[in-house]
Amino acid sequence: MRFNLAIVASALSGSRVSSFVPPHLRSPSSSSSFSSASSSVLHASADSDTVTLGIFGGGTVGGGIVEILTKKRSHFKLLTGKDIVVRKICVRDATKSRDFELPDGCEIVTSYDDILDDETIDYAVEVMGGTTDAKDVVMSALRKGKSVVTANKALIAKDLAEIEGVLASLGAEDAGAQFRYEAAVCGGIPIIRSMQGDFVGANVKLMSGIINGCTNFMLTAMDRDGKSYEDALSQASDLGYAEADPTLDVGGFDARSKLKILMRLAYGMDVDEDEISCRGITELTKIDFEYAKTLGGTIKLLGVAALNDDGSKVSAFVSPCYVTNADPLSSVSGATNAIEVVSDNLVSSIYIGQGAGRYPTANSCVNDIVSLARGDSTPLPFNPKSDMKFANNYESVFFLRLNYRDMVGITRQVGEICERHGVSIHSILQNPRAKDQESAFAIVTEKVEYASILKVLADIEGLDWCRGKPFYMPVLRDDWQS
Amino acid sequence: MRFNLAIVASALSGSRVSSFVPPHLRSPSSSSSFSSASSSVLHASADSDTVTLGIFGGGTVGGGIVEILTKKRSHFKLLTGKDIVVRKICVRDATKSRDFELPDGCEIVTSYDDILDDETIDYAVEVMGGTTDAKDVVMSALRKGKSVVTANKALIAKDLAEIEGVLASLGAEDAGAQFRYEAAVCGGIPIIRSMQGDFVGANVKLMSGIINGCTNFMLTAMDRDGKSYEDALSQASDLGYAEADPTLDVGGFDARSKLKILMRLAYGMDVDEDEISCRGITELTKIDFEYAKTLGGTIKLLGVAALNDDGSKVSAFVSPCYVTNADPLSSVSGATNAIEVVSDNLVSSIYIGQGAGRYPTANSCVNDIVSLARGDSTPLPFNPKSDMKFANNYESVFFLRLNYRDMVGITRQVGEICERHGVSIHSILQNPRAKDQESAFAIVTEKVEYASILKVLADIEGLDWCRGKPFYMPVLRDDWQS
Repeated sequence: MRFNLAIVASALSGSRVSSFVPPHLRSPSSSSSFSSASSSVLHASADSDTVTLGIFGGGTVGGGIVEILTKKRSHFKLLTGKDIVVRKICVRDATKSRDFELPDGCEIVTSYDDILDDETIDYAVEVMGGTTDAKDVVMSALRKGKSVVTANKALIAKDLAEIEGVLASLGAEDAGAQFRYEAAVCGGIPIIRSMQGDFVGANVKLMSGIINGCTNFMLTAMDRDGKSYEDALSQASDLGYAEADPTLDVGGFDARSKLKILMRLAYGMDVDEDEISCRGITELTKIDFEYAKTLGGTIKLLGVAALNDDGSKVSAFVSPCYVTNADPLSSVSGATNAIEVVSDNLVSSIYIGQGAGRYPTANSCVNDIVSLARGDSTPLPFNPKSDMKFANNYESVFFLRLNYRDMVGITRQVGEICERHGVSIHSILQNPRAKDQESAFAIVTEKVEYASILKVLADIEGLDWCRGKPFYMPVLRDDWQS
Repeated sequence: MRFNLAIVASALSGSRVSSFVPPHLRSPSSSSSFSSASSSVLHASADSDTVTLGIFGGGTVGGGIVEILTKKRSHFKLLTGKDIVVRKICVRDATKSRDFELPDGCEIVTSYDDILDDETIDYAVEVMGGTTDAKDVVMSALRKGKSVVTANKALIAKDLAEIEGVLASLGAEDAGAQFRYEAAVCGGIPIIRSMQGDFVGANVKLMSGIINGCTNFMLTAMDRDGKSYEDALSQASDLGYAEADPTLDVGGFDARSKLKILMRLAYGMDVDEDEISCRGITELTKIDFEYAKTLGGTIKLLGVAALNDDGSKVSAFVSPCYVTNADPLSSVSGATNAIEVVSDNLVSSIYIGQGAGRYPTANSCVNDIVSLARGDSTPLPFNPKSDMKFANNYESVFFLRLNYRDMVGITRQVGEICERHGVSIHSILQNPRAKDQESAFAIVTEKVEYASILKVLADIEGLDWCRGKPFYMPVLRDDWQS
């Protein structure tokens, strides 16, 4: 697969939007070249004005990509000087009816090799999901010199190092094969490209995000509509927000995969996912939402990675967090995603958008395709590596909720335990309860180490009056942005 | 100015971050080329591994750019394969002391031609401001084949068509001259690049944004701290948020310039700024904030552009707007900016960040410089033109506030006037007032045409009991996102 990117006027003939054509696209007999960051794309060939795609997956996202490419074909010609053509779509069952129209000349195939071995196909678009076949397809396409566009978060989180290795191993003559994955993290939010291009001169101090749509939908339902956990989950499943195995959502694991990828981009570090402390939303109760409301905020499941004060280490976790109502993240409701990036140059940058779905995901894949066709280069798709170290500890203000059986001395005992582990108490909340079963009180600490909180909770759990496992969550903002 | 972009290993020698080097950057005797979208950059030259800058302006932003380029020099080598070097900085007074360190080999000059006529300088960075000399410098640099990076919103808003004309007129041999202006709209928010790259396959239905930091700071102070308009303005001036002539801020004109540029990007239309209805924050009173709070929201100065229902026309305005607390824009406080883009593919995308300041603005300029050095191409920096028409009318729910002298028949008269102009009333608010002077009531309408509201207000203004000019503002969300 060698494609020439020289632009000839014929590429634009018939374009409907032609009121302005820049000189690159106009010069009638120009030998000028759009070129990607590679030596391999500088050869002339007959179909220099066409970019051809093979798509792996003809489902929701694949269909969305085909629809957008069809609808915007002349617009993309104008933007890139290329005709972007879907040549083959690889599906499991060729007889299944599709919810999109097959473009003229596009073939449905069922063997991966029909695309991989086709030297006339320039880009491989992987939207079939999974981490086994999808991995083979992605690796093979790259090795064959095809640029890859993928929406596969799980694959990247699992095999990031290997993908990076393959990209690094490509000889100079194959270096035209680029790797794009905008849709893999937070669907429609352009966070990948932003981390590749908008923070090049900045040092990221903190990333925190609502990066799982299913749980944010559930938390919104529990907080705003007072729904129980079970009702909220069932509604999320009905609406298609939950994974087939909802543990990936409610356990925080989906968010952790995304966080791992974002940490590679922000800090140049490749952390084993299992090293990142991961707590989902299963321990939350109605009382936590009530207390959060009393405190003037709400609860969000956040993925957080933060540089420590001297810039030597990064800590990270996925956890429910208390977020004050003054924070824009607090009003991100439903299945919407949001990411905040705090950096030296830009202070706080927040991106809010759709995290999943047919068109948001397809839109991001199409952005990648158009960017490749336009010749943009991203030689280091995961940004440069660094020697940054991972620390499984961080400082924060914490919210603790303790369920108790009423007896004398509770406050004194909690006070003693906190004192023993150096945890200062900022405030105690205890609303009057109707039923003794629901008796609970909440503590907000001063800024302390996560490790100290774990010790406090372990000690409290051993006390007579403590019912069940105490719940804790970090409080966003009080010092992460110091 | 011809620079070759071939990468040689020496570009990377001495790089501190070298744990991963992609093949493009590694191949020791490679003749492979990073290339921009131009024929003119494919020639080899001696300093192929260096990109040289001339900066016009050595003030706040210019200093920030130099600092970031110095601090991140080796990082940028890794990202682009180039050594990015500031060769000259053009200032008014060469003897003035600077708040940044001059890089080795960088010369302070006082004549524009020292940069413009220097064929060894590849990119011209214009951060001196103004629309006279700055225009000459930008146009001349482009004509001489230098790529331009600018932060100059006023210049672009005023002379967009002319800049576009110059870009279009460049011969193929100068087509390497690109135009970048990320910092010109909302400083640190990457909205320009996003409009160029993240919505290529989408149709924008609505843009609405808090795009003037000074007024948002003032509105926050008036709403949250109960400050008067005068106190808020004086504080904003003290903090450096207001322009020398604060009319540009409080009158909405600065926001309108940005909106004009965003409309060109989103809709391909070049609207005369004066055609866009522009109302600032000068008419707002404490009562408006009180009523907004009663309604569960706040007031923001927004720039809004929206496609009408059949997609044939775009309406736009700058105006104070009522924003409900459930909307993330409501919690964007202080001098922060925010832009929401509603599109078919992505539903709602919101970007929140710093709108101005040394490092946010410099960061965006540096992003542009690095992107150019990396060879990214943006042949149509304002996106393709379209035949979209402008309509000076739109539909919305409106909030009206009327100051009155108490008398019999007010409600009936208002009812009659609204009926006459086809305006349905959704609700009426009237808080008891201590002092008669402050007597006012508010009306929230159903969705109606802006033109009808103007008729209603004109009629009401002529009535005996009406004191002063009635105030109105659109209500965000009720139907813009239909």
